[in-house]
Amino acid sequence: MSITSQHLQYVLRLADTALILGQRNTEWCGHGPILEEDIALSNMSLDLIGQARLLYTHAAELEQQLTGKQRSEDDYAYFRAEREFANYTLVELPHCGPLAGTAQAEKDYAVTIARNFLYSTLMLHLWSALTASTDAQLAAIAAKSIKETQYHVHHASEWLIRFGDGTDESHRRAQAALDYLIPYTREFFSADEVEDAIAAAGIGPRTAELEAAWLADVSATLDEATLILPEPVKHVTTGKHGEHSEHMGFVLAEMQSLARQHPGANW
Amino acid sequence: MSITSQHLQYVLRLADTALILGQRNTEWCGHGPILEEDIALSNMSLDLIGQARLLYTHAAELEQQLTGKQRSEDDYAYFRAEREFANYTLVELPHCGPLAGTAQAEKDYAVTIARNFLYSTLMLHLWSALTASTDAQLAAIAAKSIKETQYHVHHASEWLIRFGDGTDESHRRAQAALDYLIPYTREFFSADEVEDAIAAAGIGPRTAELEAAWLADVSATLDEATLILPEPVKHVTTGKHGEHSEHMGFVLAEMQSLARQHPGANW
Repeated sequence: MSITSQHLQYVLRLADTALILGQRNTEWCGHGPILEEDIALSNMSLDLIGQARLLYTHAAELEQQLTGKQRSEDDYAYFRAEREFANYTLVELPHCGPLAGTAQAEKDYAVTIARNFLYSTLMLHLWSALTASTDAQLAAIAAKSIKETQYHVHHASEWLIRFGDGTDESHRRAQAALDYLIPYTREFFSADEVEDAIAAAGIGPRTAELEAAWLADVSATLDEATLILPEPVKHVTTGKHGEHSEHMGFVLAEMQSLARQHPGANW
Repeated sequence: MSITSQHLQYVLRLADTALILGQRNTEWCGHGPILEEDIALSNMSLDLIGQARLLYTHAAELEQQLTGKQRSEDDYAYFRAEREFANYTLVELPHCGPLAGTAQAEKDYAVTIARNFLYSTLMLHLWSALTASTDAQLAAIAAKSIKETQYHVHHASEWLIRFGDGTDESHRRAQAALDYLIPYTREFFSADEVEDAIAAAGIGPRTAELEAAWLADVSATLDEATLILPEPVKHVTTGKHGEHSEHMGFVLAEMQSLARQHPGANW
C-alpha cells in the first residue's frame, strides 16, 4: 500500500482525539468525589492515552515511509503546535461546559460523562469498521480498542441514565451538558479530502456512514435517561483541520510544558 | 478474634499511607515528560488507591464491630481531618523535595522515584509478612498487593539505577532526593502501642523486624546505582500518630475539596 499524506493525517486525527480526551479526563485524577469513580475514570484515561500511543507509533512508521522524517510518540504529543493537532473540537472543551469563562465555572461531571458518551458511542462503531481496514496495523489497533470502548460506552451510559433519571438537579445538568456538547458532534460526520482518500483506499469508512447507527444508539440511551436530543445545528467545528477553540491552548500548555522545559531530558 | 482499636488503627495506617502516596503521585498524571512513563506512574497510583480502598472497606467492618459506627471508604478518604490520618510522613512530602518552599521549587522526578523505591521496598517485606496474618481479610489483601508491589519496586529500582549511574545532573538529583527522604524512613521502624498490640495478636509483624531485610535491599540497589546511603538520623517523624508535616494540609485540600463541596452528592 502506498502511503498518502491523508492516510497519515487520518491516523493522527484518531490519535490526537484519543490523547486530548484522555488528557482532559485526567483533570479529575485525584480530585474525584468518589474513590471508585476516580479510579474508573483514570483507568479510562489510560485506555485512551494507550490507544493514542499505539496510533502515534503507527503514524511514525507512516511518516517515515512518506517523508523519511523520524518522529516518536512523544514528539507528536509534546512537540507539535496547536495547529498541528487534528482532534475533534469536542474533546478539547473544558469540563465546566456551558459555564466556561464565567465566574460560576467549575468542573461538571455531567459534561464529562455526556462527552464520553457521545465520543465513545461513535468510536464503538468506528473501531468496529476499522477492524476491516486495508491498513493491517490500524485494524489491529481497532480490534484492541473495541473492548476498552465497550466499557467506556457502558460506563458513560449508566451514569447518563442515572443523571437523567435522577434528581431534578442532575437531570437539569445532564440536559445542559447535552445541549452544550451536541453541536460539536457535527464535526464527527463532516466529509473532507482526508476521509475521501482513506475511504477510497479502504483504510476506513466515511464517518457519515456511521451517523445513523450512532444516532440510534444515542437516542435509545437518551430515551432511557428521559433526556432530550437537542435540535441539529448547522455550524461545524474544525478541530480536525487544526482550527481549534480557545480552550485548546490551555490543554496543550498543561500537557506539554514539562516535556518542553526539559527537551531530550535524560530520564 | 476480638477487635481492638489498635487493630483498626493499624489497618488505617496502611490504608492512609497507600492513599496519600497514590494521591501524591497522581500529581504527575497528565503532566509527565514521557507518555509511557506517565501511564506507568498513573497505573501505580491506581494500584495504591485500589489497595487503600480494600483496606478502608476492611477498616469499616472492624470499626462497625468495635463501635457500631458505619463508615464507607469515601468517609475515610474524604471526611476525616488531618489529625485522623495515620500515614507515614514520608508519603505526604511534595515532589519538589529539598527545594520545597523556595522559589526554585518544582516537581523533581528523582524525589518521586526515590520515595517509591524506599516505600515499596518496605511494603514488599511487609505485605509478605502480612500474608500470614491472623486477620484473614488482611492476609488476603496482602497477597493481592504483593504482585503489584513487586512491579513498583522493579520500576523504582530501574529508574534509580538509571539516575544514579546516569549523568552528573541525574546522579546529583538522585543523591539529593535520598538525602532528603531517608530521615523520614525512621518512622517505618519505630515501635508504638499499635504495633505492640498487633504483633501480640499475630495480626502483623513489628516493622522493626523487617528493617535489616529492607536495608539490605536498599543498599544493594544504591550500590548498583553508585549512590550513597545517607547516615542514620535520630529524629523520627510522627505522621502515623496523626502529627503531620506542613505539607499534609495541601494534600488533603486537593483531595477532599470536591467531595466536601458536594457531601452526599447524588452522583
